[in-house]
Amino acid sequence: MIAIGSQLKPNLKVDLPSIQQTFSVPFQYQVHFTHGLFQIHNPLLADVIDASSSHNPFSSGPKKIMVIIDGGIAKPDQKLLQQITDYASYHSDRITLTQAPVLVPGGEASKNDPALIEQLQRSMDAGKLCRHSYVIAIGGGAVLDMAGYAAATAHRGIRLIRVPTTVLSQNDSGVGVKNSINAFGKKNFLGTFAPPFAVLNDFAFLESLGDRDWRGGTAEAIKVSLLKDADFFERIERDATLLNRRDMVAMQHLIYECARLHMHHIGNSGDPFEMGSSRPLDFGHWAAHRLEFLTDYRIRHGEAVAIGLALDVTYSYLIGLLDKAPWRRILNTLTALGFELYAPELSSHLDDPSHPRSLFKGLQEFREHLGGQLTIMLLQSIGQGLEVHEVDFGHYREAIALLAELYPVN
Amino acid sequence: MIAIGSQLKPNLKVDLPSIQQTFSVPFQYQVHFTHGLFQIHNPLLADVIDASSSHNPFSSGPKKIMVIIDGGIAKPDQKLLQQITDYASYHSDRITLTQAPVLVPGGEASKNDPALIEQLQRSMDAGKLCRHSYVIAIGGGAVLDMAGYAAATAHRGIRLIRVPTTVLSQNDSGVGVKNSINAFGKKNFLGTFAPPFAVLNDFAFLESLGDRDWRGGTAEAIKVSLLKDADFFERIERDATLLNRRDMVAMQHLIYECARLHMHHIGNSGDPFEMGSSRPLDFGHWAAHRLEFLTDYRIRHGEAVAIGLALDVTYSYLIGLLDKAPWRRILNTLTALGFELYAPELSSHLDDPSHPRSLFKGLQEFREHLGGQLTIMLLQSIGQGLEVHEVDFGHYREAIALLAELYPVN
Repeated sequence: MIAIGSQLKPNLKVDLPSIQQTFSVPFQYQVHFTHGLFQIHNPLLADVIDASSSHNPFSSGPKKIMVIIDGGIAKPDQKLLQQITDYASYHSDRITLTQAPVLVPGGEASKNDPALIEQLQRSMDAGKLCRHSYVIAIGGGAVLDMAGYAAATAHRGIRLIRVPTTVLSQNDSGVGVKNSINAFGKKNFLGTFAPPFAVLNDFAFLESLGDRDWRGGTAEAIKVSLLKDADFFERIERDATLLNRRDMVAMQHLIYECARLHMHHIGNSGDPFEMGSSRPLDFGHWAAHRLEFLTDYRIRHGEAVAIGLALDVTYSYLIGLLDKAPWRRILNTLTALGFELYAPELSSHLDDPSHPRSLFKGLQEFREHLGGQLTIMLLQSIGQGLEVHEVDFGHYREAIALLAELYPVN
Repeated sequence: MIAIGSQLKPNLKVDLPSIQQTFSVPFQYQVHFTHGLFQIHNPLLADVIDASSSHNPFSSGPKKIMVIIDGGIAKPDQKLLQQITDYASYHSDRITLTQAPVLVPGGEASKNDPALIEQLQRSMDAGKLCRHSYVIAIGGGAVLDMAGYAAATAHRGIRLIRVPTTVLSQNDSGVGVKNSINAFGKKNFLGTFAPPFAVLNDFAFLESLGDRDWRGGTAEAIKVSLLKDADFFERIERDATLLNRRDMVAMQHLIYECARLHMHHIGNSGDPFEMGSSRPLDFGHWAAHRLEFLTDYRIRHGEAVAIGLALDVTYSYLIGLLDKAPWRRILNTLTALGFELYAPELSSHLDDPSHPRSLFKGLQEFREHLGGQLTIMLLQSIGQGLEVHEVDFGHYREAIALLAELYPVN
């Protein structure tokens, strides 16, 4: 209640207590693992959708689904489209395709085009999808982000089933609670927090990934293992050569553990929608984001994260926070996975942190993104991070020089 | 876990249990009541923003705020803009205006223009607002919906402080958890569930409302009282003549009780984001929405709700659900408030429920909006609703004829 001044007429005096609103919204979803999701006898998708009927009083008859497919999937040819159509026909007692699957551009391009969002939402409207219908998005992280944003804002949220097709999306972004598109030249400027209805990780999609995408996703697993789980790091360290040779069982384990730890972080942070001080697992990411930009995306996200991790663990070592042995183990594991750990763009304009092409400008951008105070994650031991709010440019210059010496570019 | 067929190579067998994600997101906000929010010595706004600092580790120094003002507010003249600028200067230790307040078109028009959303979000970007900054939206329900959508999707949610300026927004939409804009010719097609950071109800804005807007908002109070609180209905019944004469104390009480009941419904439904079977308080609304459309919005929302309520209580009476005495009390209260209870558009094409101009087509649209099954709220006594899933056109025709006879249009 606010006391008001005597200048008001008596009958305007506001003498009403404030009304407090307090509630909690429960969210739940499952991440399932399969191989050949759209093989006609694989019951997973139909079961996941059907299971929702029991607690949906509006449901009777088959559910409406609209399918969005990443055009960047290797061979998103008629075979996958035909498989999906056949799957829907076979399970027509439980699902109805409102239209043929929609192909969208793959990669970051899909997040830069507002007209694409409008086109997808126009299709959702034309197909009469409602809040009890399903959008199934099949693709890499960018397409899942974009399609997720389109679904989350139509009818204030049509149910989203994610089918991540890359290592990175299966173990990280695809199992989380965010969506986004780019706007005004800013990555992820628009988006919402919107947990998926379900995530269906189909390992068959990994077989057709190029080597760079296969490898790229493992950097996020290294990241999460270093902060959360030393045993998991040791497993990746042991499996590194196998992973580099594309061993599927080793990769399944890596994806599973990374997804599990990532979900545990979201679900147990006490702040899954990052409304307060909760922060995402962004170890190594200030430099990674910056390096993607500085190389005009020649270096992909996972590759940049590997370099960003190498930089921040080397810095941690140089300032005396991290011992030499674990520092070397981490770098060796990254190289065994096949990552380069240095790029020339790291070294330019280091003497002028505010230069538009300086790596260090990434620290300023990171601070602004966080909303004021700089927070950088460092490492004190494998499995144990430490947040700091100040960094020393001198030691970072030294770390960069060390990486340049240890890992010269061919 | 999904068993897979024997056609797969052994090393591709997927033998990983599903990962279950479960968490709850706590939300809280307060609705405050004041008079003269931007009078320089009124501490409310600065206090509300400052109070957030204690649990925000990123905060130091004044908070960034961007102000959006409904151009439809009577006299949104230099005085209000100057007041806001002066207020920010006076409280510059706690708040910083990132730019001059932005005037936007008032009314439904503001929800039909995607370019307006983009313009506002571009300003949020230019002003470097982050997730710990504030958008303050001042206006009627439509502008709050539109500005709320813009704020909710920028940076996945900039904090929103709503300053509702009409009876309808102060007692109903402005205290709730939704935002929206129109798209593809569909009202509220795009939107999110996004609780505000705070709601500041400033009664001073009511003084300049036209009579139709003053009256219009009371229909939602009648609606909520009929479903939730017989004592509240009796108070409105008693105050009806005072309210019609624009008595501010009676109106303050009406707004307060209506806001309180509305918030209680949202917070205690167990499903505030309407993910399952939870439904909004839409008594009288199937016909109201339809009538707004059929009259090309000549009849405003609150006026249409009054007629929609009159129709559904008359139907409830005719089918023997509601006694005659409460039925008459409700109709008499609505007319004492100054509402018309009949419009000629109610009667057209009643013999053809699927005719594009028939009132009954509204039942079909309502069913589709709900996602399959029709659910209509009727009344069995004052304070006690009853949901039904079927209606009888014959009794509805009779109800319309009765309203036409009792409340002929002049």
